[in-house]
Amino acid sequence: MEKVRVAIIGASGYSGEELVRLLLPHPQVELTAITSRENAGKAVGEVFPRYAECPLKFIRPDVSEVARLAEVVFLALPNGLAGEYARPLLTAGRKVIDLSADFRLRDPAVYEKYYKMAHPAPELLSEAVYGLPEIYRETIRKARLIANPGCYVTSVLLPVTALLRAGVAEAEGIEAMCMSGVTGAGRKVAADYIFPECNESLRPYGLVGHRHLPEMEQELAVAAGVPQVTMNFLPHLVPVNRGIHSTILLRAKGGATAETALAALHAAYDGEPFVRVLGAGKLADTKHVTMTNRCEIGCLYDARTNRLIVSSAIDNLTKGASGQAVQNLNLVCGFPETAGLNQ
Amino acid sequence: MEKVRVAIIGASGYSGEELVRLLLPHPQVELTAITSRENAGKAVGEVFPRYAECPLKFIRPDVSEVARLAEVVFLALPNGLAGEYARPLLTAGRKVIDLSADFRLRDPAVYEKYYKMAHPAPELLSEAVYGLPEIYRETIRKARLIANPGCYVTSVLLPVTALLRAGVAEAEGIEAMCMSGVTGAGRKVAADYIFPECNESLRPYGLVGHRHLPEMEQELAVAAGVPQVTMNFLPHLVPVNRGIHSTILLRAKGGATAETALAALHAAYDGEPFVRVLGAGKLADTKHVTMTNRCEIGCLYDARTNRLIVSSAIDNLTKGASGQAVQNLNLVCGFPETAGLNQ
Amino acid sequence: MEKVRVAIIGASGYSGEELVRLLLPHPQVELTAITSRENAGKAVGEVFPRYAECPLKFIRPDVSEVARLAEVVFLALPNGLAGEYARPLLTAGRKVIDLSADFRLRDPAVYEKYYKMAHPAPELLSEAVYGLPEIYRETIRKARLIANPGCYVTSVLLPVTALLRAGVAEAEGIEAMCMSGVTGAGRKVAADYIFPECNESLRPYGLVGHRHLPEMEQELAVAAGVPQVTMNFLPHLVPVNRGIHSTILLRAKGGATAETALAALHAAYDGEPFVRVLGAGKLADTKHVTMTNRCEIGCLYDARTNRLIVSSAIDNLTKGASGQAVQNLNLVCGFPETAGLNQ
Amino acid sequence: MEKVRVAIIGASGYSGEELVRLLLPHPQVELTAITSRENAGKAVGEVFPRYAECPLKFIRPDVSEVARLAEVVFLALPNGLAGEYARPLLTAGRKVIDLSADFRLRDPAVYEKYYKMAHPAPELLSEAVYGLPEIYRETIRKARLIANPGCYVTSVLLPVTALLRAGVAEAEGIEAMCMSGVTGAGRKVAADYIFPECNESLRPYGLVGHRHLPEMEQELAVAAGVPQVTMNFLPHLVPVNRGIHSTILLRAKGGATAETALAALHAAYDGEPFVRVLGAGKLADTKHVTMTNRCEIGCLYDARTNRLIVSSAIDNLTKGASGQAVQNLNLVCGFPETAGLNQ
Repeated sequence: MEKVRVAIIGASGYSGEELVRLLLPHPQVELTAITSRENAGKAVGEVFPRYAECPLKFIRPDVSEVARLAEVVFLALPNGLAGEYARPLLTAGRKVIDLSADFRLRDPAVYEKYYKMAHPAPELLSEAVYGLPEIYRETIRKARLIANPGCYVTSVLLPVTALLRAGVAEAEGIEAMCMSGVTGAGRKVAADYIFPECNESLRPYGLVGHRHLPEMEQELAVAAGVPQVTMNFLPHLVPVNRGIHSTILLRAKGGATAETALAALHAAYDGEPFVRVLGAGKLADTKHVTMTNRCEIGCLYDARTNRLIVSSAIDNLTKGASGQAVQNLNLVCGFPETAGLNQ
Repeated sequence: MEKVRVAIIGASGYSGEELVRLLLPHPQVELTAITSRENAGKAVGEVFPRYAECPLKFIRPDVSEVARLAEVVFLALPNGLAGEYARPLLTAGRKVIDLSADFRLRDPAVYEKYYKMAHPAPELLSEAVYGLPEIYRETIRKARLIANPGCYVTSVLLPVTALLRAGVAEAEGIEAMCMSGVTGAGRKVAADYIFPECNESLRPYGLVGHRHLPEMEQELAVAAGVPQVTMNFLPHLVPVNRGIHSTILLRAKGGATAETALAALHAAYDGEPFVRVLGAGKLADTKHVTMTNRCEIGCLYDARTNRLIVSSAIDNLTKGASGQAVQNLNLVCGFPETAGLNQ
Repeated sequence: MEKVRVAIIGASGYSGEELVRLLLPHPQVELTAITSRENAGKAVGEVFPRYAECPLKFIRPDVSEVARLAEVVFLALPNGLAGEYARPLLTAGRKVIDLSADFRLRDPAVYEKYYKMAHPAPELLSEAVYGLPEIYRETIRKARLIANPGCYVTSVLLPVTALLRAGVAEAEGIEAMCMSGVTGAGRKVAADYIFPECNESLRPYGLVGHRHLPEMEQELAVAAGVPQVTMNFLPHLVPVNRGIHSTILLRAKGGATAETALAALHAAYDGEPFVRVLGAGKLADTKHVTMTNRCEIGCLYDARTNRLIVSSAIDNLTKGASGQAVQNLNLVCGFPETAGLNQ
Repeated sequence: MEKVRVAIIGASGYSGEELVRLLLPHPQVELTAITSRENAGKAVGEVFPRYAECPLKFIRPDVSEVARLAEVVFLALPNGLAGEYARPLLTAGRKVIDLSADFRLRDPAVYEKYYKMAHPAPELLSEAVYGLPEIYRETIRKARLIANPGCYVTSVLLPVTALLRAGVAEAEGIEAMCMSGVTGAGRKVAADYIFPECNESLRPYGLVGHRHLPEMEQELAVAAGVPQVTMNFLPHLVPVNRGIHSTILLRAKGGATAETALAALHAAYDGEPFVRVLGAGKLADTKHVTMTNRCEIGCLYDARTNRLIVSSAIDNLTKGASGQAVQNLNLVCGFPETAGLNQ
């Protein structure tokens, strides 16, 4: 079985570590390089004790060296840095899967507004493909530059896209109330994230203008076939390590109920390896999907308010980041889409 | 300083234990009786090791004995049982503060619909007073039978009532997304509540037709001065012991923004000992209110959707149950409202 | 690649669920039957939503049916029931891997003393093999009946056996202070194990006469080549889902220090796929081994008290139960020992 | 009722915040100053949102200003800084209660060895009193400079001192295996303490040469009336916010058993407001003592190894730090010892 040589640039955060977890046992991947400015020279096992058997050492993020060592490169960097690496890698004929937000928004002006900086590589936006395989599978197969979706965004887009496309929900008045585990903040060493400040704490943040909002709106507008979607996105931080749960209120359209909504979800996803539509009346629970690449979706209908109520759960580091990135790798390499992702 | 003799009927759950925590050091209370069928004969400290110094023993719930021992009686029983105890206690001239749902809904038909049983004492409904002191303070002072509000309900009513009364929010389209710690389920010994099933789990439940919904709607209709409010209430179970956080979406009315909403909240609550309105841009965090009788409220405005977004946090066992019950006790007894409640 | 047909009897607890997690993707296993009295008739995914894709249904524990369907049978039953199933399965020529305590103790009188019941199948004890592969690998390969070790016991035996055998520690005065996550208690629905009673709680239990004590002593006596080891074993319950950490005090022998002890551990385990000896000065952390079949071991030396201090971590459900059982399956079936166990 | 004016120097850590929690409602205390270099100028409620009603602002740590404002001063500073503040405060006639380690060890050479720095004020050691009220009550009453004990140390000294004094345990071979919640590390913003690194993690640290070791040994030698005690102290970090549990192995002396040990503990502590000796067979649980100033103690006897096994639980921030400091304040001020400490 042929293997592809793969590198990770910026691997010392949680998404990078999750990529290591998934790529080391991947049957068609040879992980050949892993970079980190701060950890250069250290063995992978020194930084991630869980992967002590990994023979690699972190190297400095030298693009030409990475291009020499790998055919596909994951970028797991802070926002704003992807351009610097993607440009020369693409020129050298490498494929790039970027886990940051840099290539997710099609309009660089929206990027500037929400990320408070000039877009790092607007010339690459036209060829970047939004890496949500269940929606853009065929385009991803042929892509050279993939923008891996945001974690919250994935948990919202999977159910809502199907419902909008099926015409059972309105594109207006969408409201997503989401909870995320603390790894969703990345490996951030800050006072708000130390254990005693998170444990026994429930708190919203970013209730207005969170960076994942324009990404949701962009993709939901495409799904609904409308020029613009304007919604509310309400994220909360809760004391678990992994997991995102989204409860989404949608205006039911054309007499839709739970049955029609579930039928639409089944029609959209029954063949999908990583989406599971739950039975009538069932709701999602993050503990059923952590450490998997799966999105679990339930749907109820509230006749009193004519709302569909969607319950959607993923692991923020797997389907919400690195698992989805590996799913994209499988697509661009022509591997079975589930390779390395069924444990 | 004069003391009132107080009893707790049905004290072996978490609300009962929280009443013990608050009443033992209360300067104007003598706790004279505490009942529990299953624990009758045991010392309080045997059942609640934290209160080992308490000299009381649990007794069986004999109403005439309780009426002999106490002037004010807390009922901390499962729903449906309050009538059986409240009736003879009231007849004997005792005051009753009921922590169950039995006297919260004014319409027994609504009770039957949501609680799936006939109302246990419809003849007492007319004199039951809804025990939310910030709204019904003066009525509570003169009441003999107080229906202590539900935990989720308290966290929603305090901010939303003020905003409706001030005319800055519409009574239509209210949506409350709430998260509760596991004590909110009571001391329930069931498979869904053992540690490994709750820890690292985020899950909604009761998204349609939760029992706290009609209670919210009843009181919000009063606040708005409309015959009926119909809203969505979306509760979630998350792995903390104590705490409820509610994020509430309201349609802004008449050009209201965060400033006008915060001004309305300040106007309503600035003298209140147990409501704290946060500064502009600040959001509530349960960890700032656990073990206190306080409700913390923040408010933002989303101009894109014309929504006020309220963030409200309480301790479900204190302001959401037993602390509020003690606040009601203080009112009916003419004590300072904060007696025994500032730690 | 040939596959072996495998069954699990008594699969509705956490060990059973962990077996399902490991066996479903095992490349050389076909899981053909899974039994549970209470869940008979239900799909696996109904009971364990995480494994919804599994096509099996629970059946009743009918031994002849299980013998027809499987060549190797895991027993994941409460203590005292293994005899009833093992006897006919062995007679029918099946191999049995028992996860209970029933075949761990060689002396049925010790079993009676600690488990407070007559031994369920004393006639089978002579052929039962203690299933700790790192110690009894060759015997396990030829066994028909394997007694899978206890979770705490595994975390203690792996380091201490090597140190005793190497003559760097005394067999006298061994003390093991251990902490376990709550799944260690099984899926036990009891008041002590509901979330609010475990969360924010640290508590010892079974400090004298815990059932894992005689099992440790039996195997350590073998390792030391002495007739009897008498030790202290101090278990504690702490609020994590998975993981056991053991800190073990040993009297250093013959001038042994951390260096000689680590050398002995390296000599014993450097070729082992599931034991990792940490570098000098490093201590184990359960978070590096959860969801793996690995035991991580560190060792320090305290010159002031002449003690070796061992730090050992495993996942109680994997290396401490079902992962080790699968490792035993691999041995009895002649598969690579790591099959199905490297994620 | 007369009040004493009190200040806290270095109040932005968890011990400082706990002092604020206890001192604000203390009936005989007026908190007049609270200092913090980094938070100077901010309102207390801005830094500790829980105490928003507190009218104080943080000021810079100006000793003469503090001496002007307060009669008793708590020092809640990192180790090594107490001398700089204690010296001028004592000269100005103020009383000082130091929560750091600086005045706990009588021998400055031991301090240098364990804290890796020269002692900051050796000339003050002779008048510093070790602030464990249950042992040194009468000396504390007359002290000007009190060294508040370490958290682990308190949990070990209370039970073991009583057992050594009663002659039921040997001073040799003491072993203390302890678990602490994460606030025990202080408000430390470091990678090891962010939520995802602590949650679902069990890990020892400092197994050899922890800084609390010489403090335990010093005080246990006094209790036993021997020149030197040499013991093992094994601390572990576990995912709770508050709480320390210590399991202590002691060699039983002169035929002592659980009964004689419990009798000794009762004899020592039955009149004590903050020590609770548990019934025969009962073990301590941190959840019964968090947010209290109480130490809960159980004791078993293992006849097989002739060991007394002590189980001791405290809240590391209350009896382990700030609660004990307030108890010391009460003693030096002649207040009832429980003032402000019974909730």
